[in-house]
Amino acid sequence: MKMHNFNSGPSILPKEVMEQAAAAIYDFNGVGLSILEIGHRTSWFGAVMDEARALVKELMGIGDAYEVLFLHGGASTQFMQVPMNLLDTDETAAYIDNGIWGTKAVKEARLFGNAVVVSSTKDKNHSYIAKAFTVPAGVKYLHYTTNNTVEGTQWHSFPATDVPLVADMSSDIFSRPFDYSKLALIYAGAQKNMGAAGVNIVVVKKDMLGIKRAIPAIMNYRNHIEAGSLLNTPPVFAVYVALLTLRWIKREGGLAEMEKRAKERAALFYDTLDALPAFKPLVVKEDRSMMNATFTTVRPELEDTFVALCKQEGMVGVKGHRSVGGLRVSMYNALPLSSVQAIVDLMKDFSDKNA
Amino acid sequence: MKMHNFNSGPSILPKEVMEQAAAAIYDFNGVGLSILEIGHRTSWFGAVMDEARALVKELMGIGDAYEVLFLHGGASTQFMQVPMNLLDTDETAAYIDNGIWGTKAVKEARLFGNAVVVSSTKDKNHSYIAKAFTVPAGVKYLHYTTNNTVEGTQWHSFPATDVPLVADMSSDIFSRPFDYSKLALIYAGAQKNMGAAGVNIVVVKKDMLGIKRAIPAIMNYRNHIEAGSLLNTPPVFAVYVALLTLRWIKREGGLAEMEKRAKERAALFYDTLDALPAFKPLVVKEDRSMMNATFTTVRPELEDTFVALCKQEGMVGVKGHRSVGGLRVSMYNALPLSSVQAIVDLMKDFSDKNA
Repeated sequence: MKMHNFNSGPSILPKEVMEQAAAAIYDFNGVGLSILEIGHRTSWFGAVMDEARALVKELMGIGDAYEVLFLHGGASTQFMQVPMNLLDTDETAAYIDNGIWGTKAVKEARLFGNAVVVSSTKDKNHSYIAKAFTVPAGVKYLHYTTNNTVEGTQWHSFPATDVPLVADMSSDIFSRPFDYSKLALIYAGAQKNMGAAGVNIVVVKKDMLGIKRAIPAIMNYRNHIEAGSLLNTPPVFAVYVALLTLRWIKREGGLAEMEKRAKERAALFYDTLDALPAFKPLVVKEDRSMMNATFTTVRPELEDTFVALCKQEGMVGVKGHRSVGGLRVSMYNALPLSSVQAIVDLMKDFSDKNA
Repeated sequence: MKMHNFNSGPSILPKEVMEQAAAAIYDFNGVGLSILEIGHRTSWFGAVMDEARALVKELMGIGDAYEVLFLHGGASTQFMQVPMNLLDTDETAAYIDNGIWGTKAVKEARLFGNAVVVSSTKDKNHSYIAKAFTVPAGVKYLHYTTNNTVEGTQWHSFPATDVPLVADMSSDIFSRPFDYSKLALIYAGAQKNMGAAGVNIVVVKKDMLGIKRAIPAIMNYRNHIEAGSLLNTPPVFAVYVALLTLRWIKREGGLAEMEKRAKERAALFYDTLDALPAFKPLVVKEDRSMMNATFTTVRPELEDTFVALCKQEGMVGVKGHRSVGGLRVSMYNALPLSSVQAIVDLMKDFSDKNA
């Protein structure tokens, strides 16, 4: 059965990326060894790391003011590592809390310095983006989540502020042209638009670094920068899969093409959703995510029926995040329009029978 | 050309593990999706995590007093995470410094509490294990490195102490029968005897946990225990490769069989090394590692010649660690005796020509 993968992450990867990754397990670049058994300090892997870091810069269109790091862990690690590196004990950072990840991020920041929430959408279950807020004078940075994977909202503009911006872009990185130079630090777990689970990228403007705190060696961005992202054994295979995915993005036409496809998928999905009486969206129209569409059935008792139907038709990942419930369809870079067509057809049929 | 992989880590894995890993990238267990694109909260991956954790316990022969965690990062992460979780600011830990990794570990511990070095072999370039030492009263734990990957030494007995033992076993875990119940905490990066880079295991006696410090959520062992090692998205593929390797160890005959093979490899290598006039070992006989043999050429100018010769013969990883130089042959679980035979044959030939 052909599977349709709507997983929110780990999620669908391009078929050719998976084929290349599997081939490299047998033999990496014809060197006679598997990607799983080559040393991370060989010129072989050095070339992988260099190309991956350079491709991130190229796709982001950023210059030498920034450094790109591939680090162990995911975005949850960065919730801690960002304030550990950027925020001294007597300093204050501002956080926008538009969803579960932002809530977690601010909690970690408070272990290292002062953190104030300047905008929260908790009042309405994070079903929108609160774009108006005031940032107190003198804060070190303003942290926000560009796309809320769980709640299905997305920033379609930049937060209006003069404060250095720190962005968790885990679920919409490289999904659209984006002025990355407006950001002081960008981080993202790889397992949505950028590869497999087990690695995250941190892109940091060098002038953000240099606080008084003693930082554990392995957590210190500056150590990783000095070591060219080879401070310790990196997650070799996950970095390689990220490189393959970055190459694929570039080859397919870059961020403009990714956005074109995202818009086609989102238009098809949301237009259908809005037209069907059996379903309802969970997010206000203007703040809807192009990556994660959250919705539910109008009759709550039908939600499980729909999930079961999806499963039967080979559609995985349609259940909402365990913390919020509902339904969710994730539509990352590698998801073909045909998968969206398949689920909207199913939704239409379901709506006809259950409206 | 047939390659002989003497890498110190990432290092050689069993051929069937690599074949199974590659197959799972095409289709994981026949579910129609790749291991790279399945959700970590699916029952599919839940079964992987459960089996991997259970197999660690089974191979270690430990009971319910312990918890097994698969975490992001490598041993370098644990240099920090262990004291962060175990050592309160006003407490003291003892460290044995028998090599580069021990030196790094004690440095990180000092960021969290007091750490005293009770035994150091720095005086003789860490070419031996100092087994006699005194631990001050009241220390929280004694930390040691069971096998020094870089220097080529290994503990063949347990450090004599009543203090809870914390062991970095990155380079000799699962290489021999071992009374794991003598340890309070064990950690190891996977990329030597246990799988691919990108994951480490922590096995901790639960009664060691519970200090006053506020621990960042993602670093807190207790959070990971509560979440069944699924606190955040784990390094899915690396955990799966670890499971495949653990299954292989068990299937091949378990730790007794691993030790039998290690002894055969080590005997062949060290007996040859001791017999050849052109080479000399770097470690005293009684403390030599069965995993990493360090040595050099008697005439220093021939070292590079030998490395070049190895390369020419398809033998990789023979150069010593960049911090100490010399030569090193790593002989982990998956290394066939035939690879050791190949390099000793080359050494004999080289010695005949250059003695």
